[in-house]
Amino acid sequence: MDPLTAICPPPRSEIENVLLGHGSGGRLMAELLAGVIAPELGLAEDGAAAVPTEDAAIVDLEVAGGHGEVIVSTDSFVVTPRFFPGGDIGELAVNGTVNNLAMRGARPVAMCLSYIIEEGLGIDELRAITASVARAARSAGVRVVSGDTKVVGKGAADGIYVTTTGLGVRLRCAQVSAANARPEDVVLISGPIGLHGTAILSVREGLGFEAEIASDTRPLHDLVAAMIEVSGASVHALRDPTRGGLAGALNELAEASGVGVELDEGAIPVPETVAAACDLLGLDPLHVAGEGCLVAFVAPDAALDVLVAMRAHPAGAQARPIGRAVQAEPGRVRMHTLAGATRVVGMLVGEQLPRIC
Amino acid sequence: MDPLTAICPPPRSEIENVLLGHGSGGRLMAELLAGVIAPELGLAEDGAAAVPTEDAAIVDLEVAGGHGEVIVSTDSFVVTPRFFPGGDIGELAVNGTVNNLAMRGARPVAMCLSYIIEEGLGIDELRAITASVARAARSAGVRVVSGDTKVVGKGAADGIYVTTTGLGVRLRCAQVSAANARPEDVVLISGPIGLHGTAILSVREGLGFEAEIASDTRPLHDLVAAMIEVSGASVHALRDPTRGGLAGALNELAEASGVGVELDEGAIPVPETVAAACDLLGLDPLHVAGEGCLVAFVAPDAALDVLVAMRAHPAGAQARPIGRAVQAEPGRVRMHTLAGATRVVGMLVGEQLPRIC
Repeated sequence: MDPLTAICPPPRSEIENVLLGHGSGGRLMAELLAGVIAPELGLAEDGAAAVPTEDAAIVDLEVAGGHGEVIVSTDSFVVTPRFFPGGDIGELAVNGTVNNLAMRGARPVAMCLSYIIEEGLGIDELRAITASVARAARSAGVRVVSGDTKVVGKGAADGIYVTTTGLGVRLRCAQVSAANARPEDVVLISGPIGLHGTAILSVREGLGFEAEIASDTRPLHDLVAAMIEVSGASVHALRDPTRGGLAGALNELAEASGVGVELDEGAIPVPETVAAACDLLGLDPLHVAGEGCLVAFVAPDAALDVLVAMRAHPAGAQARPIGRAVQAEPGRVRMHTLAGATRVVGMLVGEQLPRIC
Repeated sequence: MDPLTAICPPPRSEIENVLLGHGSGGRLMAELLAGVIAPELGLAEDGAAAVPTEDAAIVDLEVAGGHGEVIVSTDSFVVTPRFFPGGDIGELAVNGTVNNLAMRGARPVAMCLSYIIEEGLGIDELRAITASVARAARSAGVRVVSGDTKVVGKGAADGIYVTTTGLGVRLRCAQVSAANARPEDVVLISGPIGLHGTAILSVREGLGFEAEIASDTRPLHDLVAAMIEVSGASVHALRDPTRGGLAGALNELAEASGVGVELDEGAIPVPETVAAACDLLGLDPLHVAGEGCLVAFVAPDAALDVLVAMRAHPAGAQARPIGRAVQAEPGRVRMHTLAGATRVVGMLVGEQLPRIC
């Protein structure tokens, strides 16, 4: 049992209603998936893992002349406020889904867009959000091909919710999967963590950091392409630490791959403003979402080449190693702290930052 | 200007906020798409029609060994109540997207599923809805491959909203498009109209028809496959009259294809309960949504074969011709009434039945 669970164990067997924490990207959410959604969908029966661990799925299609493979991912965005330092819900919805595809080693090609709008939303705001969707899609090289618009009455939504579904094709040589990390892999991170969550929280709570901090929302597919270009199948696993933060991402990969992870606290890039905001609010930066960085598990003999390729890319200029995968204690993430101790890094249990994305 | 618009012209140029009517599937919605969403997305620049007219899009992908084609469609479902006579939001969300693919001549293969859940939804209800999604997907031969779950606070949604995105492959010989109807085509309908809308409304308003009427939600891909099997490219255009009803579906196809449509009122299958409920509420059955029937524009020399194939299929047992496409007055739908007159059948202007799907 990890320390966080030990400290505040909710009486989960008695939970009869969905809690905000079920959307956190943490342990409660994993339990909802494993205990309710996956069994009802019969995912285990299909021979897939009982709980979905990938950000995107590979679908085999019969196409003219044989078989083809398309990579898909869907995500709903409910972030509040809708406009925040560094971005807005439209841009976030495109980049988020582009990044889900990228984390599976795919080049994004097309996107579907669905709006659920609360009656009374300003047409100008809808226009601005849609323009932002278009800009982000264009800059990621993705075509918006199909869409839907629903309107619900006042009080039945909060402004607008955006669902994007992305389609992509696998990059040549990419063999990336959440379950593919291996002992001895070097864990690389592309840049600072926690920026998106802190930016959102700062505006929402009026912390006064708004001028100093902005969301890092950006597409990462191009960075991933550069990484795979130099190393092919040596990039084993990728994840962007969004909901649940770096701790969530690493725990998920460790669990799916059956490896342990050892982190070096001193190497983890926590910007000063993120650290200050987290101090103020009693949050652990390791649980705070970013929307523009990724962690990669890379075979040791390719790690240096991949790191150099990352640093040569604007989205990875601050890339660095933060730890490695080990055989011991599969599924467990441990951190060597600055104080010289070792602590287990658990997933968030409940909710820390609702509606962060 | 069609009669409905003439009777109640909203001051549309002054509309500054999204209205419920913008989600109706009627003229206001078409204006929102044409005036705000499509231009901001730059759809016209891509060489596509300025306003999306298809229920599903065809995406070309580079796949191993050449090019492949995948057909995609996305739809959000916000229906209230979530459980209604004949179905629930989970089943509706699967069938609705399966049918969008079918209307483009596709066989559905895979589906993505995204939930936006209001804090406090019963876990049992979530379980029941997910089981319903699974059942509907299984019965349509579709795998649920990827998903997302977001939770928003109390009052920021109404229970649960479900977004489905379907992927399919084109049926051999299918050449179906909203823009492909031609003068002289026979217009066939697969079964009675207005059942879904009336069932929802009956529960919502407590009309007392609940025992007599049920939603017709069902997948139509298999019926479409049977139609195309006997006639190949002679099935020119397909649409399922959901939001906006039969009037909306026919107006959209007439406009996209540049044909006129002449309907025979006596041939249109309006069930007695639907007629009675519409009488009571002052609705036109032609504007009321179904979720289990389709209209087809079929080349005259293939129409009989297609009709026979439809009637041999459970979903088309009551199929019949209801009119034909003509060269005159492109984009206009006219109906020869039982009283011997002719009237223009316009699209719904604003909102009649919010949150019908």
